[in-house]
Amino acid sequence: MTSGESGGTVTERLNVVVVGAGYWGPNLARNFRAGSDWNLAAICDLDLERATRVADGVGGVPVVSELGDVLRDPRVDAIAVATPARTHHAIAMAALDAGKHVMVEKPLADTRARGVEMVRRAEERGLVLMADHTYCYTPAVLKIRELVADGALGDILFVDSVRINLGLIQPDVDVFWDLAPHDLSIMDFVLPGGLAATSVSAHGSDPLRTGKSCVGYLAMPLVGGAMAHVHVNWLSPTKIRQMVIGGTRRTLVWDDLNPQQRLSVYDRGVDIDAVSKVTTAHTRAANISYRLGDTWAPALPEREALGGVVTEFAAAIREGRPARTGGAAGLRVLSVLDAAASSLALSGGPQPVANDLEEVAA
Amino acid sequence: MTSGESGGTVTERLNVVVVGAGYWGPNLARNFRAGSDWNLAAICDLDLERATRVADGVGGVPVVSELGDVLRDPRVDAIAVATPARTHHAIAMAALDAGKHVMVEKPLADTRARGVEMVRRAEERGLVLMADHTYCYTPAVLKIRELVADGALGDILFVDSVRINLGLIQPDVDVFWDLAPHDLSIMDFVLPGGLAATSVSAHGSDPLRTGKSCVGYLAMPLVGGAMAHVHVNWLSPTKIRQMVIGGTRRTLVWDDLNPQQRLSVYDRGVDIDAVSKVTTAHTRAANISYRLGDTWAPALPEREALGGVVTEFAAAIREGRPARTGGAAGLRVLSVLDAAASSLALSGGPQPVANDLEEVAA
Amino acid sequence: MTSGESGGTVTERLNVVVVGAGYWGPNLARNFRAGSDWNLAAICDLDLERATRVADGVGGVPVVSELGDVLRDPRVDAIAVATPARTHHAIAMAALDAGKHVMVEKPLADTRARGVEMVRRAEERGLVLMADHTYCYTPAVLKIRELVADGALGDILFVDSVRINLGLIQPDVDVFWDLAPHDLSIMDFVLPGGLAATSVSAHGSDPLRTGKSCVGYLAMPLVGGAMAHVHVNWLSPTKIRQMVIGGTRRTLVWDDLNPQQRLSVYDRGVDIDAVSKVTTAHTRAANISYRLGDTWAPALPEREALGGVVTEFAAAIREGRPARTGGAAGLRVLSVLDAAASSLALSGGPQPVANDLEEVAA
Amino acid sequence: MTSGESGGTVTERLNVVVVGAGYWGPNLARNFRAGSDWNLAAICDLDLERATRVADGVGGVPVVSELGDVLRDPRVDAIAVATPARTHHAIAMAALDAGKHVMVEKPLADTRARGVEMVRRAEERGLVLMADHTYCYTPAVLKIRELVADGALGDILFVDSVRINLGLIQPDVDVFWDLAPHDLSIMDFVLPGGLAATSVSAHGSDPLRTGKSCVGYLAMPLVGGAMAHVHVNWLSPTKIRQMVIGGTRRTLVWDDLNPQQRLSVYDRGVDIDAVSKVTTAHTRAANISYRLGDTWAPALPEREALGGVVTEFAAAIREGRPARTGGAAGLRVLSVLDAAASSLALSGGPQPVANDLEEVAA
Repeated sequence: MTSGESGGTVTERLNVVVVGAGYWGPNLARNFRAGSDWNLAAICDLDLERATRVADGVGGVPVVSELGDVLRDPRVDAIAVATPARTHHAIAMAALDAGKHVMVEKPLADTRARGVEMVRRAEERGLVLMADHTYCYTPAVLKIRELVADGALGDILFVDSVRINLGLIQPDVDVFWDLAPHDLSIMDFVLPGGLAATSVSAHGSDPLRTGKSCVGYLAMPLVGGAMAHVHVNWLSPTKIRQMVIGGTRRTLVWDDLNPQQRLSVYDRGVDIDAVSKVTTAHTRAANISYRLGDTWAPALPEREALGGVVTEFAAAIREGRPARTGGAAGLRVLSVLDAAASSLALSGGPQPVANDLEEVAA
Repeated sequence: MTSGESGGTVTERLNVVVVGAGYWGPNLARNFRAGSDWNLAAICDLDLERATRVADGVGGVPVVSELGDVLRDPRVDAIAVATPARTHHAIAMAALDAGKHVMVEKPLADTRARGVEMVRRAEERGLVLMADHTYCYTPAVLKIRELVADGALGDILFVDSVRINLGLIQPDVDVFWDLAPHDLSIMDFVLPGGLAATSVSAHGSDPLRTGKSCVGYLAMPLVGGAMAHVHVNWLSPTKIRQMVIGGTRRTLVWDDLNPQQRLSVYDRGVDIDAVSKVTTAHTRAANISYRLGDTWAPALPEREALGGVVTEFAAAIREGRPARTGGAAGLRVLSVLDAAASSLALSGGPQPVANDLEEVAA
Repeated sequence: MTSGESGGTVTERLNVVVVGAGYWGPNLARNFRAGSDWNLAAICDLDLERATRVADGVGGVPVVSELGDVLRDPRVDAIAVATPARTHHAIAMAALDAGKHVMVEKPLADTRARGVEMVRRAEERGLVLMADHTYCYTPAVLKIRELVADGALGDILFVDSVRINLGLIQPDVDVFWDLAPHDLSIMDFVLPGGLAATSVSAHGSDPLRTGKSCVGYLAMPLVGGAMAHVHVNWLSPTKIRQMVIGGTRRTLVWDDLNPQQRLSVYDRGVDIDAVSKVTTAHTRAANISYRLGDTWAPALPEREALGGVVTEFAAAIREGRPARTGGAAGLRVLSVLDAAASSLALSGGPQPVANDLEEVAA
Repeated sequence: MTSGESGGTVTERLNVVVVGAGYWGPNLARNFRAGSDWNLAAICDLDLERATRVADGVGGVPVVSELGDVLRDPRVDAIAVATPARTHHAIAMAALDAGKHVMVEKPLADTRARGVEMVRRAEERGLVLMADHTYCYTPAVLKIRELVADGALGDILFVDSVRINLGLIQPDVDVFWDLAPHDLSIMDFVLPGGLAATSVSAHGSDPLRTGKSCVGYLAMPLVGGAMAHVHVNWLSPTKIRQMVIGGTRRTLVWDDLNPQQRLSVYDRGVDIDAVSKVTTAHTRAANISYRLGDTWAPALPEREALGGVVTEFAAAIREGRPARTGGAAGLRVLSVLDAAASSLALSGGPQPVANDLEEVAA
């Protein structure tokens, strides 16, 4: 640790190295550079020229091409991994073995089994393993989590997420692995108890014959009877990023592309009070009525989500606790993606979701 | 037939009786009353008081409580049925046997098997059997059909329909049978060759334990590789009625609740030309690029869809031809709904869709 | 009066004749026909064929071509005038002299002076003279009035109304007289104490050289220091109907063409508390700060405004009191329009607004 | 000039110093730093600490506190001024006298008379004087200019601009001088021949008694009969940035806060062909009809406007020509603001606009 500059009690800055100087690396570098938690010790990339460009963009930091050099350096406290998903496991395992805390870009790994190994290794070593589920740190998602936790929506009835975007067809992953981690990590973050899907049915379509799904749907019955559903789509030029969370008390709509009113909370819905006392399904149906209430759009601050990510990473390390979007959260996302891949292979039949560490070990 | 009033060539008005004076009957009555094709001969409902209210609402026409009286009246050319779905089969069969042309509110029947009987009976008797797929006659859907037929969208890659609405939980049908006929009949109307689903996976949720699905999803791979998908939802207070049709040349978005711009055609998308020549999936993926073009919103006239429905019904009778949304279209919708019910019973596993008359007969 | 049908206490229905069977007449006829306050006694129009069409549209009522016959009929309690504005004065004066209550489509008359005569005559005869300011009876405007009255917005700082619509260029009125009565009557209805403009500056444009303004702006400083402003426009194909009311506590936006969220109340604004204690303007400016709060969209029932108009007309007659949008309100609108015409003739220089009956009499 | 890095022909980079390290300075610094036209030689601010922060933000450049030092440095080709408007004149005059090209943040100066001096001085010295009318270099405004120039809208009938924003009440300028330069400079940029207002009527409101207008309206009849109008408002929490340009052929709506569809071109409007042959106003009005056509939203690239500003500044210097938004454009904006101030002092009466350099000299 290097000495921080904040007056009064001197806090040591943590030293971090950003591994991977591609699309996401510059954003990580910029955010580690800002604030007083971190000292950005280096940018690491096999392509030194690329690393240098990122380093210059934040005012100049050392660059290094060999990950081994980073891991051997005792001054380095942590690494932040922004490389392709298939390399996450090897890099993270090596770093954990070298005693470094690790943050990994989503998805945590490219299979659930590898994610389980990473989570276990971090536990064994007493190190922080954090998933960079950036969306969870946006003001909108933080507010959604708060509203759900406070009971503002009542019991959750359904969660429906749509993420449509003309996107580059990725060379090594399909639309589920590319886009759905966003939706799944958000659901995991805002639902009480996390994303507890009992099964997943995945429906994919590859109408351009690219060898992988470009349009995808995930249907996930949740423990307790609610339904979660995700629609991800690479083939549409209309950008849609919308999530609807229906509850017994209120319904919330998050329209991320409407900066004027991202969140709307509808104080309308099924009047469940009349329902709760009757027992037969038919009588319940006959007794359900509707309330027409006001709509309410909470004010949201303007704040960069990634700033919250690096702050949480530092806090988890300092306080010796799991990160808010820790390895377990990353694993729950992988569990769904793995089950979805199985379902896809079976033409959409429902597949069970491994929901905890032990279950898979068996 | 009674004598029409249009000058020059005298056209006989066709005599129609509206059967069912509930929610939809008054709209049918009003539209049969307008224009010069039809003479609204009577309103028929077991509840004469209800029939009288509808009759008064259109300036006064006879009312009758017994369907038998209507069917025995040789002056009656046709009936329009607006009763609950479970009664469609009996009423339509009796009417066809009495030599009357029949139009039936959606869905055509409450099972595919009954729909098949109705279609066959109409064919045997040489009578018109028409499904009142009202949405197909809206200016927006007529324009979509025209754009697809003209190749403006290119080959269809996916069709995604969302219909969300705080709706009354119906006593005898679930959300699929209540709402999805709209989406399915529209898809059938606008897709070249109709809705040719190879299978259906249905996912439903009943979080209020009413005994039936209140939130539902249908995934339907289409012949040729595209995907059709429907989301119907009774539990959300936010009204959404949106359909996205993605094609190789352009993508169309229909937002029915935006009267200022219901249809948007995006001249953007995957640049398929580069793709068509390469053969391996991996090379294809690597060669796909994107075009960023303009958006275009076709002007739509303001016109009541039901007016188009009754006009088409009259034209089909006069010209001795099947109606545009005839029994066959109604049957294709029932085929999907039947398969969906089977899929639901199997927790969402894909079920084949019976796609023509013979197949089922076997 | 004829005997009403409501059980218990028998209320006499009031007899009304709709005068004028043009664009607005059918709407009046339909609403007088509905409900239990009124008996629609006849439709009166010089063009009997036109009158008959309107009469048939509501299930058949008598038609009459001579206004004199209507006014001489002692059974007629009231007339509702839907003829061109230039005829309002003569018809209303004759009706008042014949002892009939009168409701007049907006604007009350074609000059302020004529409006004053009408108001005085109604007062002398003890009869109700009501302006059909339909918009004031929409759920949105009723809610705005309530919010302003309850102090939810605080002190009003500005009112800005925009009404843009590709409209037929009227043969005898300009865009101010055609469209601005809507905005002015709404402002008069919702502002505490009515629309109290100290002066009007009118700016018009006639770029197509039609002989009258097709684009118009009204700037109206209000008593107390706030500003009211109206933009009316016949030449734009984009429909805009929007009013912003800024207050010291909250700001309200009414977007009438957004049926999903017509009213939005922003709990944000200038933090006036810090301001109120300082005295010099410069210090005040330096002390003004801003609050960023939630947005709130009140639920609005779906209800036809004109139903509220005819109900209020009946209630005012029965209770022997002025109508809510009575002659005085109609007169305040005319006062602004008259001053605007003077301002226009002076290239937009501000003109005083006659604000009460006496002032003009002088 | 320092030597540029672009291969082939070596282009000398121009040396620029950014004067003023407040709100806008960092943006200028960043854009001068990017690209190959400029060498950012220094940041100049009396407050060296502030200057250093800006310099660090772009990777480190020299800082200087004395403008005189900058002007005496023969290597400096140009300065970019981002200081308060009241200081523009003194700084620009000194820089021009020192032989430096000058770019000035909007507005060009704090009075028209001072702007005239600046324009004349630049002409005399053969130097570029450019107004940083940033909005004119946005993809949206560039496209509007192109559409108007190509005749896509036909003859312009009206231009209406609204700019509403909860804004800090400025210590030394009112809402007209703070916000309207945006609208006026855009109008000047897109209208053929620039903004040729024959007069200005300004209506301002200061309901919080801050000593200056916080809500303002400008009505500006244009040469040729069209009307331009601006609404600027500091007191509303709803952000609105919208411009409607109505033409005889089409109407364009620019909604800057709708990133999904900033520009909409409506192929609807008054059918002027029928009008052009008739001569009397009354006959013209009777012959005007309407077309209902499609809407079209041109694709716009994503590009930072300020990058275009600094490129244009360099190109004007290299080519020895006036900049696209040169001193003359800045002066036309000042002419309107000056006339507006006079109109305000006269309670909104129309004031003539000085439209060229000579007129004012007299």
